Amino acid sequence: MLKNEAAQPTTIRNHNRRLVLETLEKNGRISRADLAKQTRISEPTVSGVIEDFIRKGLVRELGPGEATSGRRPVLLEFNPASGYVIGIDIGGTNIKMGLADLGGKLYCQKRIASKTIGGGETAIAGLTDLIFQIIAENHLEKTEILGVGLSVPGIVDPVQGRVSFAPAFGWQNFPVQQILMRQAGLEVAVENDVNAAAWAEKQWGVARDFQDFVFVSIGTGIGAGIILDGEIYRGHGYAAGEIGYSIVDLQWLKRQIDPENLSFGCLERLAAAPGIQNRGRALGFTPKGSADSWSTEDIFYAAAEGDLLALQVVEEVTDYLAAGLINIALLLSPAAIVIGGGVSRAGAVLLEPLNRKIQTVSPIKPLLLMSAMPDDAGLNGSIALAVRQAKRKLVEG
Amino acid sequence: MLKNEAAQPTTIRNHNRRLVLETLEKNGRISRADLAKQTRISEPTVSGVIEDFIRKGLVRELGPGEATSGRRPVLLEFNPASGYVIGIDIGGTNIKMGLADLGGKLYCQKRIASKTIGGGETAIAGLTDLIFQIIAENHLEKTEILGVGLSVPGIVDPVQGRVSFAPAFGWQNFPVQQILMRQAGLEVAVENDVNAAAWAEKQWGVARDFQDFVFVSIGTGIGAGIILDGEIYRGHGYAAGEIGYSIVDLQWLKRQIDPENLSFGCLERLAAAPGIQNRGRALGFTPKGSADSWSTEDIFYAAAEGDLLALQVVEEVTDYLAAGLINIALLLSPAAIVIGGGVSRAGAVLLEPLNRKIQTVSPIKPLLLMSAMPDDAGLNGSIALAVRQAKRKLVEG
Repeated sequence: MLKNEAAQPTTIRNHNRRLVLETLEKNGRISRADLAKQTRISEPTVSGVIEDFIRKGLVRELGPGEATSGRRPVLLEFNPASGYVIGIDIGGTNIKMGLADLGGKLYCQKRIASKTIGGGETAIAGLTDLIFQIIAENHLEKTEILGVGLSVPGIVDPVQGRVSFAPAFGWQNFPVQQILMRQAGLEVAVENDVNAAAWAEKQWGVARDFQDFVFVSIGTGIGAGIILDGEIYRGHGYAAGEIGYSIVDLQWLKRQIDPENLSFGCLERLAAAPGIQNRGRALGFTPKGSADSWSTEDIFYAAAEGDLLALQVVEEVTDYLAAGLINIALLLSPAAIVIGGGVSRAGAVLLEPLNRKIQTVSPIKPLLLMSAMPDDAGLNGSIALAVRQAKRKLVEG
Repeated sequence: MLKNEAAQPTTIRNHNRRLVLETLEKNGRISRADLAKQTRISEPTVSGVIEDFIRKGLVRELGPGEATSGRRPVLLEFNPASGYVIGIDIGGTNIKMGLADLGGKLYCQKRIASKTIGGGETAIAGLTDLIFQIIAENHLEKTEILGVGLSVPGIVDPVQGRVSFAPAFGWQNFPVQQILMRQAGLEVAVENDVNAAAWAEKQWGVARDFQDFVFVSIGTGIGAGIILDGEIYRGHGYAAGEIGYSIVDLQWLKRQIDPENLSFGCLERLAAAPGIQNRGRALGFTPKGSADSWSTEDIFYAAAEGDLLALQVVEEVTDYLAAGLINIALLLSPAAIVIGGGVSRAGAVLLEPLNRKIQTVSPIKPLLLMSAMPDDAGLNGSIALAVRQAKRKLVEG
């Protein structure tokens, strides 16, 4: 309910219908009577809502469940196959697309180079073609697609559906939602990529049970998606979560005062993938076997094997990251911090020292969790966006 | 409206009544017709709500206003004198108390040493005596006091009215609200002191027009009160805002790993009042005139006069503070950051370098504002709490 708008009877109706669906999903299988009990909504109202959900295919009846006495009640469950969505994760290098059902189950995915679809409005025509391809390849009708989720790096206004700035496509204050909706003839939701990934963690990931958590993506850059009170928190100008620029070492502040060095020395520069590799090179790290080309994963792998140079890199990088995460914990006191993005594939060799340092130094100690989808955060995020929008339309429609 | 509870018709009623009062307060003077227009609530509903508010003394009618044509409408205004509240700001050294009306106008205040009222439940008896004294001294009846606001340093659960930990009174998981309500026979609201001060900035201070801002108190300690979407954000375990422990200089992280030095090197240690004085002493600063005893204010005063040692202290301290504030700005993207607490009395000599450093280094640039009530943040906070609770009761009752 919007704070500065008058509440209408439909506000209650939609709130309670949403509550019925969420309670149903949370329980897996549940009877109408138990739904009424748990939601504290009257049984006749719950039954009416359920009839509508069944008609829309959103809910289905199972056989009767167990009863302590008398007739066994009919159980209900959420029907994830009641429709499909398409998720599109737009990256600087690649575009990933996927087809999924309302439970987030992926039926197919594809990846193409971002540069192949051009920039500006041309890129939208390219995306539209890809959407129609996916629909055709899966022998679906367009009417079976309940919506498209678009996850975009950069600052996104999800209300207006505008991308403020996404250099990869030359988009600047670009109304991507409106144009893609018109061209594809489908519902479109658009969101910043890290926010979308955070939402996917809330929907299907390790943060399912948390109402307040911060998702920290560590890959070629570092950014945060903030979920407060179960919703994405975006801040003024939709710019929250830009923690890549955080200052964790004061000597860097002084260098940053020089505008030529603006991005110099911030958390991202020191602890994202390129920074980790730079530090490895500076220390003379070479992985066993080939020495020519190696990735951050090679460093973490070598550290896990006891390589001293690799261990030193990990020690330094986790100092920076621990400082960044402690500062997040202190300000927001989230129930959990979820680490995702490519660097999080390192697993325990990253998590263990990070967790140790945070637990030792910080008086506020959120749970530190590794994402279970380090490679698909963006794609899962875009699907989660589309699913949220599709469910909202079905619930309120 | 609580997210996981069924919405009831009273939810709409209370929401809309609150909206009417807020719109009225925001406008100063307004007619019933304009209230209906602005809130988009029907005129008969608005008139009904207003009749009730007038009966309760919360709103009063003024003479007719101007009209472009026809009969001039009767104007309404919020009546701050419809009741009184008592604010109590509990500090480690002093307890400040004040009597105010619903507009936050202070009628009287007093200050006593915290140690005079003892600890545990004894302290509550002491507070109750003080409350009754204030009522008697102002020739009021107890029924004219609509509530008491209690602002407490430490972690506070405002829902249960419990103080998790307030060492000054030996309170640990102490149900202060319940006990004080019983002993004083008055409504009581309790909140962490920095959160309460942030709320006062929202209610009557420089942050009146912001829905998302962070209040940073710099005094003997450093803490933050976070207002998101117009409400106090408290985080998991009500522990948000503990930014005094923030790490802004990595060398300190390593020292902190030693548990003996747990509070060593964090933002508070480096940039709160005792840290500023320590640094001044270490550099050999002495103010003109008396050299025996001097305060942080002497340093800022000397810096404003061009004293080189004082300027160096200010330069170093504002480096630390700028780093801390930049990290807040990057994570939350608040519309504004408000600086309050004793150290903020320094004014421009603190604000100018802070603002310059933030504007130069941070890609996210919230407005940086100085509190207009650096000395009374705690007391104003406690009054603001009591007023909020009193208004809510009047609106919903």
